[in-house]
Amino acid sequence: MTAIGIYGSAGRMGRAIADALVEAGARLAGGSEAKDDPAIVARAADVLVDFSTPSALESHLDAAIAAGTPIVIGTTGLSPAHHAAIDAAATRIAILQTGNTSLGVTLLAMLVQEAASRLGPDWDIEIVEMHHRHKVDAPSGTALLLGEAAAAGRGSTLSELRVDSRVGLTGARSEGTIGLAALRGGSVVGDHSVILATEGERIELSHLAQDRSIFARGAVKAALWLAGQPAGRYRMGDVLGL
Amino acid sequence: MTAIGIYGSAGRMGRAIADALVEAGARLAGGSEAKDDPAIVARAADVLVDFSTPSALESHLDAAIAAGTPIVIGTTGLSPAHHAAIDAAATRIAILQTGNTSLGVTLLAMLVQEAASRLGPDWDIEIVEMHHRHKVDAPSGTALLLGEAAAAGRGSTLSELRVDSRVGLTGARSEGTIGLAALRGGSVVGDHSVILATEGERIELSHLAQDRSIFARGAVKAALWLAGQPAGRYRMGDVLGL
Amino acid sequence: MTAIGIYGSAGRMGRAIADALVEAGARLAGGSEAKDDPAIVARAADVLVDFSTPSALESHLDAAIAAGTPIVIGTTGLSPAHHAAIDAAATRIAILQTGNTSLGVTLLAMLVQEAASRLGPDWDIEIVEMHHRHKVDAPSGTALLLGEAAAAGRGSTLSELRVDSRVGLTGARSEGTIGLAALRGGSVVGDHSVILATEGERIELSHLAQDRSIFARGAVKAALWLAGQPAGRYRMGDVLGL
Amino acid sequence: MTAIGIYGSAGRMGRAIADALVEAGARLAGGSEAKDDPAIVARAADVLVDFSTPSALESHLDAAIAAGTPIVIGTTGLSPAHHAAIDAAATRIAILQTGNTSLGVTLLAMLVQEAASRLGPDWDIEIVEMHHRHKVDAPSGTALLLGEAAAAGRGSTLSELRVDSRVGLTGARSEGTIGLAALRGGSVVGDHSVILATEGERIELSHLAQDRSIFARGAVKAALWLAGQPAGRYRMGDVLGL
Repeated sequence: MTAIGIYGSAGRMGRAIADALVEAGARLAGGSEAKDDPAIVARAADVLVDFSTPSALESHLDAAIAAGTPIVIGTTGLSPAHHAAIDAAATRIAILQTGNTSLGVTLLAMLVQEAASRLGPDWDIEIVEMHHRHKVDAPSGTALLLGEAAAAGRGSTLSELRVDSRVGLTGARSEGTIGLAALRGGSVVGDHSVILATEGERIELSHLAQDRSIFARGAVKAALWLAGQPAGRYRMGDVLGL
Repeated sequence: MTAIGIYGSAGRMGRAIADALVEAGARLAGGSEAKDDPAIVARAADVLVDFSTPSALESHLDAAIAAGTPIVIGTTGLSPAHHAAIDAAATRIAILQTGNTSLGVTLLAMLVQEAASRLGPDWDIEIVEMHHRHKVDAPSGTALLLGEAAAAGRGSTLSELRVDSRVGLTGARSEGTIGLAALRGGSVVGDHSVILATEGERIELSHLAQDRSIFARGAVKAALWLAGQPAGRYRMGDVLGL
Repeated sequence: MTAIGIYGSAGRMGRAIADALVEAGARLAGGSEAKDDPAIVARAADVLVDFSTPSALESHLDAAIAAGTPIVIGTTGLSPAHHAAIDAAATRIAILQTGNTSLGVTLLAMLVQEAASRLGPDWDIEIVEMHHRHKVDAPSGTALLLGEAAAAGRGSTLSELRVDSRVGLTGARSEGTIGLAALRGGSVVGDHSVILATEGERIELSHLAQDRSIFARGAVKAALWLAGQPAGRYRMGDVLGL
Repeated sequence: MTAIGIYGSAGRMGRAIADALVEAGARLAGGSEAKDDPAIVARAADVLVDFSTPSALESHLDAAIAAGTPIVIGTTGLSPAHHAAIDAAATRIAILQTGNTSLGVTLLAMLVQEAASRLGPDWDIEIVEMHHRHKVDAPSGTALLLGEAAAAGRGSTLSELRVDSRVGLTGARSEGTIGLAALRGGSVVGDHSVILATEGERIELSHLAQDRSIFARGAVKAALWLAGQPAGRYRMGDVLGL
């Protein structure tokens, strides 16, 4: 039974991961509590999951390297310096860093890139997302991630193709652009649709999140997969063999 | 067999109405050609349909009054003066004036107003529409019509509640607002969804137009209904008994 | 602050109602525990909510009548004899009995009946629902409720119009029928769509349930509404003023 | 300018292809009329498109081989003997045979196979389609094609996994099955959705056909692609580089 150590176990995500790993047939490594020494957790674990804070990242990486334990990093708000530290650590242990641990979103992004790449520029791309009324920014990080995947499929970047809003006399649609729209209301956890439309037909590729536990389950799946990997830096797509 | 006279028979909508009235078991009144005298058409018809230009409205109303023939007016771009002329004419003949002759959209607007009225302000309202890549304005007239219906259900107007775009740090959703979003792509004739979302549940009320013939069929249905009515000004909702 | 008494407070629904009433600014009436005397609860409460078992219904009605306390009944599996007992009790106290306490579903059913009634038989009606993989029957009770609403709008009953399955050489669709389809998968709480389709256009009226708390919240809303009503038998639609 | 020869030019599909090839910047090869000698058409064309009848297939293949002209075959109702004849001819010229020339459906089938393959059996698969009221069979050929793609992604066949209808006491969903549901109504050209649902999340992959011209456009795109290919038997997926 794989022992998973959690950094940030007192946070909402940490607690959800603790629940999800039991469901998945793994066990919580000894010492996984916020106040414990990272080194103790790292030695007790077969694989680590870090959903804590950027400021703690370096000490967590040090502990993981010292113990030779792979680590999944889901902490958000990382700087270029943090990414450089991850790259350096990945020469010695297996590290999977990601901003979204949902397997469904990971797969959808791959399908979107594939579709955008195979279909010509006469297929217009639009992305629409809906989230709960309390969300303070738009579009969602996941919509941007899907937009980047679509843009990559077209050999470009989202910042070059992005159209954020259509109000008033917009004129006709410019070929090759990617439109983004955000809806807000109720308690919607997160729905995303990527629409590819051409003369006479449309393809719609959507992901609907019902509850936030999918992120914890995805993190556990990533950890179980990472446990057996050699040193290197990995992405969520690797877990799905993409 | 009801005889329907068409003003504007040479236009795209006029030709579509000529096709639709045959399908509906009516017949085209004699003299329905662009260059004919409006008075001749009005006398030959049991009911008139006008999809021409605002500048011709007055002569068409005069002909309809002189012949005592009801008239459906679908001409767009009417000024307040045109509406006053319609009101005056409606004291003598039956007139149905509308900006949208689709029966589906007419019914949907009624359902949206009902839903907005019955559900409290803890149900957030969002409207999203998609149209073809050649459309030059946003949101669509139909989206605005649905937004007005929702606002009316809340005892307000769309201009007071409307939020047109969500990009960047928007902050949380303001209670009672109505969000509008427009997607553009391919050859989509016109899809509209009104979403009412609260804690834990959502209602979605949608209309999907497959081809533009629905506007011609709706105009013919309105004409057949209007043929038997007394003087007065009517709306599309009256055709559905709303 | 309204005091709500719960019969069946130890069940899943009873506990959810106890949570929901606090959220709604009400308070739990003293003595609302499974083992308490129903009469004590009824006297302590301004209104009662019963989500227990059919066998307990009679003693709950007796207690409510004795205390003169209105009661919401959400218990399922009621027999005609139970309904007769409810009718008799409703001559003395206010009683709201329902098989579905979601406000969204209640409203949707009304909109479906209205749409089916206003649109002619050339608008075909289809109902599709999706529920989680553990559901053992199909179609869902809510799909049947929506189907009954549609049939009522057509002046008929669902059993007369119902088509349950389309496989193989079905022949063309029969006018006036109502098609039902059930999808099963994942952990979907309950999505329902009623589609009305005619030549060239479609209306789709949908309800999406995100979590089961909506039934508890609806029950509390019904209770707060019922607290002030005179004797009589009520339906969920009355809460929404339908 | 590529010259496309049409066999079956008098049929609905043949006429649609004649329109579509002009749009695509190609030209109709001389002699493309039903009564013409297939050999004349084959010599005048850079590439042939056959949407005629199975009985004419052999003479069309002979003409194509004699002229060394590639041929797209969209004729339906082919027997194993016809397929053997195509295989034999494909050793000498380029042949693309397909039952569905829509680029969107071709791509969607590939995405569905990929998704089914990457996501484990804890992701349930359901397919729902809607077509117009005149369709006499269910589910649609495209739904079956998508079902086969999903089954192939799971290393199986649709006939082994297929569940066609859910009515009454069905019991819980069996892991690994693929559910199919068919809706009928109005004039819907063809909507297909493949839903993959697991605990807490769903992916939906959909194709919406607005008009039948997409099949003609896809056939022309396939023909233009095939014009430059060496002898061999090809599929629609090859046109998209899948």
